[in-house]
Amino acid sequence: MKTTTKTRVHNFGAGPAALPLAVLEQVQEELLQHQGTGMSVMELSHRSKAFGEVIGQAQADLRCLLDLPAEYDVLFLQGGASLQFAMVPANLRPTGASADYILTGSWSRAAIKEAEKGGPVRTVGSTEPSGFDRIPAQGELDFDPQAAYAHFTSNNTIYGTQWPAEPEIPAGVPLVCDASSDVLSRPIDIRRYGLLYAGAQKNLGPAGIAVVVIRKDLLERTPGGLPALMDYRLMAEKRSLYNTPPTFAIYVMSLVLRWIRALGGLAEMGRRNQAKADLIYRAIDESAGFYRGHAQPASRSRMNVTFRLPSAELETEFLAVAAEAEIAGLKGHRSVGGIRASIYNACSMESVGVLVELMTDFKERRG
Amino acid sequence: MKTTTKTRVHNFGAGPAALPLAVLEQVQEELLQHQGTGMSVMELSHRSKAFGEVIGQAQADLRCLLDLPAEYDVLFLQGGASLQFAMVPANLRPTGASADYILTGSWSRAAIKEAEKGGPVRTVGSTEPSGFDRIPAQGELDFDPQAAYAHFTSNNTIYGTQWPAEPEIPAGVPLVCDASSDVLSRPIDIRRYGLLYAGAQKNLGPAGIAVVVIRKDLLERTPGGLPALMDYRLMAEKRSLYNTPPTFAIYVMSLVLRWIRALGGLAEMGRRNQAKADLIYRAIDESAGFYRGHAQPASRSRMNVTFRLPSAELETEFLAVAAEAEIAGLKGHRSVGGIRASIYNACSMESVGVLVELMTDFKERRG
Repeated sequence: MKTTTKTRVHNFGAGPAALPLAVLEQVQEELLQHQGTGMSVMELSHRSKAFGEVIGQAQADLRCLLDLPAEYDVLFLQGGASLQFAMVPANLRPTGASADYILTGSWSRAAIKEAEKGGPVRTVGSTEPSGFDRIPAQGELDFDPQAAYAHFTSNNTIYGTQWPAEPEIPAGVPLVCDASSDVLSRPIDIRRYGLLYAGAQKNLGPAGIAVVVIRKDLLERTPGGLPALMDYRLMAEKRSLYNTPPTFAIYVMSLVLRWIRALGGLAEMGRRNQAKADLIYRAIDESAGFYRGHAQPASRSRMNVTFRLPSAELETEFLAVAAEAEIAGLKGHRSVGGIRASIYNACSMESVGVLVELMTDFKERRG
Repeated sequence: MKTTTKTRVHNFGAGPAALPLAVLEQVQEELLQHQGTGMSVMELSHRSKAFGEVIGQAQADLRCLLDLPAEYDVLFLQGGASLQFAMVPANLRPTGASADYILTGSWSRAAIKEAEKGGPVRTVGSTEPSGFDRIPAQGELDFDPQAAYAHFTSNNTIYGTQWPAEPEIPAGVPLVCDASSDVLSRPIDIRRYGLLYAGAQKNLGPAGIAVVVIRKDLLERTPGGLPALMDYRLMAEKRSLYNTPPTFAIYVMSLVLRWIRALGGLAEMGRRNQAKADLIYRAIDESAGFYRGHAQPASRSRMNVTFRLPSAELETEFLAVAAEAEIAGLKGHRSVGGIRASIYNACSMESVGVLVELMTDFKERRG
């Protein structure tokens, strides 16, 4: 391992986010020489045997982690979740049909905005009136049994809320999920989903690659005439190699997937993430109101913990003290303010411990 | 620098292609610790000051290398040239208008195919009848003075042909160029172009990032309702930070751009690339027909040198001998066969020397 001139910080950034140190060290180690090929992984042809092994392993490990049945395809695409906001309706919503969306935050809104460009959208539930501080109850959701699909955002990065479980939707309507900020953070029953997509840069790898898991029957909906890079069916036929994919991002993601498998898969990830979140929420709940969580307790995210301090001045001071303690990435999103601790898969319990200690100390001194 | 267990090979791959060793070494050196931030460049927020410096430097260096006037914008986008095939007509061709395309190879054809999905296309010249072995003469090109734009592919990776200079097109028609395989390989007069695009993975950096240089007045053509990630105007307004960009790819590209500047810019790149190409073409021309170039001499590419040997058996043997000499990536594209030596910016004169020596030896033994 190379020496570094400064200790690595505790990174609570919302994305692009921390990566596992073991993954970064392997990337560094083999950067000039990928697996005896005599070149960097960045210099490999995407049609080469060596890269075929990289992308094949990434596909296989993702399938294994999700316990993915044969009737699902895995696609690796460019453009992040933002391009998926447009691709989902372009591929899955037939002309004249409507799609159902649940509005739980800024990213849901962005998905709705893109979907509205091409056809009808129904917003079947919204928690905007209370500042997106919760996930709607099942009884608040008014689904259309004829909807082309029903879309939800499983974790709301900006507001710090997360669905405890998937919404119940009418039989026959495919469930579509933007899982960008909690993919592979806990076990899910993928059979409940028609399509799940996620930008990689929070739980899966570096920015520049998005994962789409799609039930194969939905590929038949893709209409003719779409731009090739927006065509799920074409991308599935070409096994994500229609054009040159972002090879390095796929490589790093493959190492992250392998790292998750080695640690024990999604059950272990879920346990760790719950334990990390519990520590911070306990510090909030035991602060006698000094720290105030944005999310209602039943809707709390295990990925992004959002909270306020008694004043903007104290928040500024808290961030300054955190920076001195080599803790980075805690500033809340500008639309919510306050503090946000993003504790994705690669954020260690050690980092969370350092943060909670800081919260406790700061509260004792300033509370 | 880290030790490697095997010498790096001479990489003549067509893309993703060789990167400058000095760039890879810097990437390796600072992989765990970007410029004192305490994190990897992959872990930086795309909204952070540190990443702002990376993307800002990349933009500034690209502008400097192209001597780009203020009336041009530079965009960094995902989806490679393949998404540009769709974005160019979606943004620049008004409803009812037609666009002119010159067909000089497989990638021109792919661009035409995407453009035809959304509106009228005229193919104003083609060298398909002679197997794409040349660039059309000016007199063969039948441009529409009312065309929304005129599109050409400056270098044809698969066939090994390259435009010696831009085609002359009617006044007022914007010239659009797919420069994926020769961008920044020689000086050009960017003022002749309305839009130039290039996937990075040949001359600029790793796969997963594309560069678009666009004259700002053309941004006014973007119609409403496009998917956000296909909207040039939006991407320009947001300075390529509408959503999370492929941060690592931009970082590596920024180092490649800096490397090109340090070597002397496009004039020096052009000189080096001409010298490399001259060496290989001389070996072909002096082989008394043992090596037969695919491209007609006046259309020869300085980026991809394509040639055949007297038989498929000899070609197979040639590739095997090359592999023994640690020379990789020489197999021609399946649609042309034979040998292809891709000698982009990062391919060194030393590597070319090794290849030419092999060609000479092999011809002496088998010719």
